Amino acid sequence: MSDISTIRTIGLVGGGVIGAGWAARFALAGYDVRMFDPDPEIGRKVDAVLGNARRAQQRLLGALLPPEGAVHIATSLSDAVESVDFIQESLPEVEELKQRVLAQIEAAARPGVVIGSSTSGLLPSRLQSGMAHPERFVVGHPFNPVYLLPLVEICGGAATSQATKDLATALYASCGMQPLQVRVEIDGFIADRLLEALWREALWLVNDGVATTAEIDDAIRYGAGLRWSFMGTFLTYRLAGGEAGMRHFLAQFGPALKLPWTKLVACELTDELTDRVAAQSDEQAAGIGLRAYEQKRDDCLVDVMTALKANDFASGATLKAHAERLAARQARPEAASDGPLPLLSTHVDAAWIDYNGHMTEWAYLKLFGDTTDALLARIGAGLDYVAAGHSFYTVETHLRHLGQARLGEAVRVTTQILGADVKRLHIFHAMTGADGTVIATAEQMLVHVDAAAERSAPMLSAVAEAVAALAAAHAGLERPAAAGRSIGLPTA
Amino acid sequence: MSDISTIRTIGLVGGGVIGAGWAARFALAGYDVRMFDPDPEIGRKVDAVLGNARRAQQRLLGALLPPEGAVHIATSLSDAVESVDFIQESLPEVEELKQRVLAQIEAAARPGVVIGSSTSGLLPSRLQSGMAHPERFVVGHPFNPVYLLPLVEICGGAATSQATKDLATALYASCGMQPLQVRVEIDGFIADRLLEALWREALWLVNDGVATTAEIDDAIRYGAGLRWSFMGTFLTYRLAGGEAGMRHFLAQFGPALKLPWTKLVACELTDELTDRVAAQSDEQAAGIGLRAYEQKRDDCLVDVMTALKANDFASGATLKAHAERLAARQARPEAASDGPLPLLSTHVDAAWIDYNGHMTEWAYLKLFGDTTDALLARIGAGLDYVAAGHSFYTVETHLRHLGQARLGEAVRVTTQILGADVKRLHIFHAMTGADGTVIATAEQMLVHVDAAAERSAPMLSAVAEAVAALAAAHAGLERPAAAGRSIGLPTA
Repeated sequence: MSDISTIRTIGLVGGGVIGAGWAARFALAGYDVRMFDPDPEIGRKVDAVLGNARRAQQRLLGALLPPEGAVHIATSLSDAVESVDFIQESLPEVEELKQRVLAQIEAAARPGVVIGSSTSGLLPSRLQSGMAHPERFVVGHPFNPVYLLPLVEICGGAATSQATKDLATALYASCGMQPLQVRVEIDGFIADRLLEALWREALWLVNDGVATTAEIDDAIRYGAGLRWSFMGTFLTYRLAGGEAGMRHFLAQFGPALKLPWTKLVACELTDELTDRVAAQSDEQAAGIGLRAYEQKRDDCLVDVMTALKANDFASGATLKAHAERLAARQARPEAASDGPLPLLSTHVDAAWIDYNGHMTEWAYLKLFGDTTDALLARIGAGLDYVAAGHSFYTVETHLRHLGQARLGEAVRVTTQILGADVKRLHIFHAMTGADGTVIATAEQMLVHVDAAAERSAPMLSAVAEAVAALAAAHAGLERPAAAGRSIGLPTA
Repeated sequence: MSDISTIRTIGLVGGGVIGAGWAARFALAGYDVRMFDPDPEIGRKVDAVLGNARRAQQRLLGALLPPEGAVHIATSLSDAVESVDFIQESLPEVEELKQRVLAQIEAAARPGVVIGSSTSGLLPSRLQSGMAHPERFVVGHPFNPVYLLPLVEICGGAATSQATKDLATALYASCGMQPLQVRVEIDGFIADRLLEALWREALWLVNDGVATTAEIDDAIRYGAGLRWSFMGTFLTYRLAGGEAGMRHFLAQFGPALKLPWTKLVACELTDELTDRVAAQSDEQAAGIGLRAYEQKRDDCLVDVMTALKANDFASGATLKAHAERLAARQARPEAASDGPLPLLSTHVDAAWIDYNGHMTEWAYLKLFGDTTDALLARIGAGLDYVAAGHSFYTVETHLRHLGQARLGEAVRVTTQILGADVKRLHIFHAMTGADGTVIATAEQMLVHVDAAAERSAPMLSAVAEAVAALAAAHAGLERPAAAGRSIGLPTA
């Protein structure tokens, strides 16, 4: 059994929408990929999905993304799996087919390599039943688009080892996914049971002429779908119960369980119903092609997850933690220096990007403001000092924009003390981009205040001493040419 | 039958989670509200919901919100409905109760006033069956939180007039909602049939010990829920079909309809199941109270819809259109004035407040940046201009802080043109608080660029002419004393 630190190359068997999505998810997380699918168009199809995925992940994580792995189209199943460190099978949902190909995969793969299956609901105990080493088989069920949606259901069969489940969980998480352990082996696992119940009901509504595909989609996306994007069903209903909570909700809406609100049987997928659904879907798509819709979907997913990241909630919390892990991997120790103080280093967040594709103005000031906070903490004027009624207020700021920061770019801010007196602190921040060039500066004048009296007041002595020491250390530094600069058109 | 332009006051009967949500939705859209509910706590409960709603709608629409309507707690049912222009009933889901109260409402209401019902699934033909004028009854079924989720299902009974449906549709849309016409009268309408199918399956999973409430929520919110927030089910599956589309998807996943992937029967809500769901929900909530979760939910909803607004898609398109209608309603011919241009007015958002309890530095620059965007739109250099590859970049900003803005305070920004040449625009923004005193100023230098070439370039002629006209109009204004100022300690 490998540790995930030893996983470099992943073998993929089956290159449909899900398999190609895995290729993109793994490659963009830095893993090399070997893909086998007998479809002669497989290279073109994987390229198309990888193109969409690259665009979406760039919007999501930008420069935080590791170097992209290579995607190799294999010439045979054994060419795809014989030398790799992990294998993911994404064949059609036919139990006998999967069992047969799993035997071929196992025969070709190295001993102990874990084999994940993308099955959306077949039982792992049955899929692994003919394997020589069933302990290395596990279901890792992803959701489309695999390169963006975080969820992956992990479900072992009776013979699956805990080490296999742990390895698959760690591997998927290393790609920014959110593994969900399915503890009880059941047809459809958890997610697809819910999806299938809703889907069967939706087909009945179309079959019975109650609503069109577009009306059904609207009934979801303008209502419950918005809540489901971050809360799911139970937490939503808990809140719907008001102050009395979930028990009250159950008491109030429990009786509806007796009402004929679903057909409660599976719909027969007749030719007529297939024709109707396909025709309504065509009408709903309004002539917009697959690629355009995929980009719209991906843009919305990226923006929704970025919005949730700001709330550190649901998939936004997963994304935030993933971005922090990626940033930590890039971080290197500060070099010692007697120059301006290095006070801030961070990566440009998707929420800071404007309609020009650049970091927006206020985000620069947010980072400079964070830098000032770091300086204040360093001189003993942090949150405790504020809580005690003392504070520094910024009274003036002069920002200059000399370059642009890109999404995900590593930026650093250093600070030079230009001067100080008993009440005032005059500082100069410089922000550098990944290549070390200065992209923005901020000159600031801070005034020390007695917050309760709302008027300026001398700094407390410990702070004044820390300021004086820093000012003395910086006294020999060259004064930035832009310090003291004013704004104006060039005189003719 | 009223026209919606004559609707000023709305009577609400029933003040639970849904009724109180309606009070907030209508009041924040500018309608006066009269609420009746026998609960002696009704005033406090409506206030709590209105507080949440005000905060959320302020974050969503800010200064675009019209003046808030008054919420009056009525002393009796007839006090709530006898003088109003529209009535919304939000009683518990008990057919006989609703029928009885509808008769009381009809007896007290003015002739012809439309009566909407919030029922989540009872049949309008049955609810209206005892009414003297059933043509004025219609279902308008909203979703929690009513003050944020756009969906409202409109469903008439056999006796409902088209004019009634049209009026209700127009009224709800005027509050920023997205009416969905339910064309076939059916128990549970469209949305709740889908929700109920998923909910029944979810209860089975808990009942059978397959998954906990938290695991089920995770199975939704990290996966399909993200897609559902803007695409619904059919469009999602169309894309999952890949290049072969919906017909391929049906062929591929049709066989799953034969698999035992749902229980397909309603779950018995035993005491034991109720206890289990309530206990798991408590554990899932992790000690976080209702109000905190409501705010988290509302923050996420606002941010998700704002993210979708940037994509002009699904609920984001509804929000964008609503904001544009509100903006058009506010737009008044500029008072003829030779002074600085009034370009922005808004209210200070909770997200902009720092640890000192004041508006944080970057929020000032955000508002000044929004003001600059408004100026650019005014001179013909808005989003279309940017899309065509031209843009103004800010190269320098000088901010001064002269006072403080408080949470919720109305602030305004005016702009004076200090100068311009073929490539540059030199401006001075002044922000005033509610009492008219200047609390901050921003002097900015913008440079016109060819975005593709990433270098400065002359403004296109129409923009240059608009700039010249404004500069000429402002040439006679007194130059602000702070213009051209630089930062420095006073010389000794």
